[in-house]
Amino acid sequence: MNALRRLIESHAFESAITALVLANALTLGLETSPELMARFGHFLHWADQFLLGLFVLELVAKLLVYRRDFFREPWRIFDLGVIAISIVPATESISILRALRVIRIFRLISAVPSMRRVVGGLFSALPGMGSIFLLLGLVFYVSSVAATKLFAADFPDLFGSIATSAFTLFQVMTLEGWTSEVVRPVMALHPLAWVFFIPFIVATSFTVLNLFIGIIVSSMQA
Amino acid sequence: MNALRRLIESHAFESAITALVLANALTLGLETSPELMARFGHFLHWADQFLLGLFVLELVAKLLVYRRDFFREPWRIFDLGVIAISIVPATESISILRALRVIRIFRLISAVPSMRRVVGGLFSALPGMGSIFLLLGLVFYVSSVAATKLFAADFPDLFGSIATSAFTLFQVMTLEGWTSEVVRPVMALHPLAWVFFIPFIVATSFTVLNLFIGIIVSSMQA
Amino acid sequence: MNALRRLIESHAFESAITALVLANALTLGLETSPELMARFGHFLHWADQFLLGLFVLELVAKLLVYRRDFFREPWRIFDLGVIAISIVPATESISILRALRVIRIFRLISAVPSMRRVVGGLFSALPGMGSIFLLLGLVFYVSSVAATKLFAADFPDLFGSIATSAFTLFQVMTLEGWTSEVVRPVMALHPLAWVFFIPFIVATSFTVLNLFIGIIVSSMQA
Amino acid sequence: MNALRRLIESHAFESAITALVLANALTLGLETSPELMARFGHFLHWADQFLLGLFVLELVAKLLVYRRDFFREPWRIFDLGVIAISIVPATESISILRALRVIRIFRLISAVPSMRRVVGGLFSALPGMGSIFLLLGLVFYVSSVAATKLFAADFPDLFGSIATSAFTLFQVMTLEGWTSEVVRPVMALHPLAWVFFIPFIVATSFTVLNLFIGIIVSSMQA
Ligand code: NA
Ligand code: NA
Repeated sequence: MNALRRLIESHAFESAITALVLANALTLGLETSPELMARFGHFLHWADQFLLGLFVLELVAKLLVYRRDFFREPWRIFDLGVIAISIVPATESISILRALRVIRIFRLISAVPSMRRVVGGLFSALPGMGSIFLLLGLVFYVSSVAATKLFAADFPDLFGSIATSAFTLFQVMTLEGWTSEVVRPVMALHPLAWVFFIPFIVATSFTVLNLFIGIIVSSMQA
Repeated sequence: MNALRRLIESHAFESAITALVLANALTLGLETSPELMARFGHFLHWADQFLLGLFVLELVAKLLVYRRDFFREPWRIFDLGVIAISIVPATESISILRALRVIRIFRLISAVPSMRRVVGGLFSALPGMGSIFLLLGLVFYVSSVAATKLFAADFPDLFGSIATSAFTLFQVMTLEGWTSEVVRPVMALHPLAWVFFIPFIVATSFTVLNLFIGIIVSSMQA
Repeated sequence: MNALRRLIESHAFESAITALVLANALTLGLETSPELMARFGHFLHWADQFLLGLFVLELVAKLLVYRRDFFREPWRIFDLGVIAISIVPATESISILRALRVIRIFRLISAVPSMRRVVGGLFSALPGMGSIFLLLGLVFYVSSVAATKLFAADFPDLFGSIATSAFTLFQVMTLEGWTSEVVRPVMALHPLAWVFFIPFIVATSFTVLNLFIGIIVSSMQA
Repeated sequence: MNALRRLIESHAFESAITALVLANALTLGLETSPELMARFGHFLHWADQFLLGLFVLELVAKLLVYRRDFFREPWRIFDLGVIAISIVPATESISILRALRVIRIFRLISAVPSMRRVVGGLFSALPGMGSIFLLLGLVFYVSSVAATKLFAADFPDLFGSIATSAFTLFQVMTLEGWTSEVVRPVMALHPLAWVFFIPFIVATSFTVLNLFIGIIVSSMQA
């Protein structure tokens, strides 16, 4: 067991895993080419299964070595999740599930220390932002319910249900096509609709801005 | 009276109000589904009226306990306004007024302490920004008057009146469709129109940027 | 002369000028309404001429009092320029020149001390940014010349001359319609055109970002 | 040799080179006008070749003076590269290669000290951002492979290959036409496609934001 632990914790082992993830990223990319699939599809599929097998072995080895401590390190849980997500579809034939296999490439994040640090940094700012996310969610929920009540009858494609309204309001928040595709058509029937949309744009921009400022301020104090 | 005060200021009471607001958010959301309204519309309407009644009772209780001091706490005024806005439409049948009832969900902000803090923080930066808002308003007013004088005759839909021009210039400021929908058509008739629009874009972007910087700087000094 | 100086430098005088500018802003705004012009056009025109006369008198008084020192205060030069720009068109009938009269409303900036401070603050950051503006200008010039050489023959409307290319590249920099209106059509004929446009977008975004950062940093050190 | 070194390092020499680059920027710009080319094309072409010859002489002189030390100063390597890129096309007639000649104007950056400092500052922040760029590249690669697997069959123009998908996802990241041109059409066939695109938008915006914050923070500590 000590020999296995020494192997797993060696720098060479980490490098080998990184190389295998990169190789898998390559085979998954090559699979998108119809010409290559026609000629080497069999080999690419076999390589993918083989690499998946190695990743499973790596996780089993780590589970044997660390036992309960395995779950103390968040990145090992990340690896377990990423591999679990890509095992299910490997045995399926539905195209959406098969596409999930590419998530395996994200193992590169846990394999490379500098990537681990960057992603860790990205997420470290989030907990402090919880209340702003909640506020943004609240503004979206209230606006979606109101928009559905107001415009569902006249614009079912844009505001037919709460989910449709939330998508359209997300579009408006990103300012993409907000006038020509959303607000001008709505204002043609409800001339005062800008009273709803302009404050929504200002409020969500202002909230997202404050989310950004919160992240900037917490980065600078770190 | 002291018993009532102890009740109102108890943690359990605050939690109960939060739960009722969440329940009301749910019923207001469910009301947007035509199928659910056909089957449970009567119940949803009754639940909404019942919850509104509880919120009114809560406010009456607080008015009785705090009397004049009620208006010393801005969040109680916020609650009073939110409930007042949603009482009027509750008795009306015009759809726009009925949609106002969803504003009641914003009571969640005053009910949850961390939300109260976030929104308080958002607004605390605004007073110092008054002059920049005034400047932005001035730029918009002058530009809208000029655009109306220049382009109203040729582009009544975009620049027919000061209000129409202000809306179109807000669109240009958000950079949404500013070339294909506004500036290229105008330049087809007035080739020098870019002399008006490019400085407008640069000036408003620069002013909004300074608004953002002001908020960032005041956040970091807080 | 001393009496005139005391008058000009009194708080009441400043307030009166502010009120007159606001009144002029109102008459200039009302002039955009065809109905109001049909009924009160004569009066509005007369009021505008009268207010312009008062502003000219104010400047003459200040010139008499301060003589050469008049030009030591930048805001007085600003007022002189704004009034000069709006005198010429007042006697003309060409609509573009008449629209220039609304620039007079910007006198509000020099009349209100807090606006003066905000605009002063906006401009104070600019001198330090001179080199970045120069760099942005250089990137635009080189890109416009290259785009014209490459695409003028196939896309005369977008890239027919250096000026046309600069406008289209400004559109691309604002990310408005950059794919559907510019890059996808160009790539249909020149499949490698993304090699030109993607670096242009990245380079200009990065330069503008650094312009912003420069302003933020200089604001925080102030 | 010492005389040559004194010449090269003199302020007058630097000014002369700056003037020559500006002159070349002018001739390259004038070449885009068909009318001017019809009348002065011969002269413009001759001037361009003559100026290129002077820049080559300058580099040869510097190589003779500094020998191996030539390559110790990054800006001299920049000059060498810029001139090398524009020598090849000068002898060719393919329009794409001829357009490369305009890159020569970027010599202005190395010729003007303040521009050199600005560009140096822009690049100094990049090395520390390497991991975030890698992460952004990883997110793009995984998303492009997944999008190709999922949507290539139904939307060959948008997601036909990894390269096409990467371009479309870059468009989505810039938020340009992301709903009307990409996500709404895809959702018409795959109603759950928003599960792919909304997290992609949030993740890339968040990563780019952190890139910006990293640059801001490193600028402020400099
Ligand atoms: Na658009
Ligand atoms: Na946009």
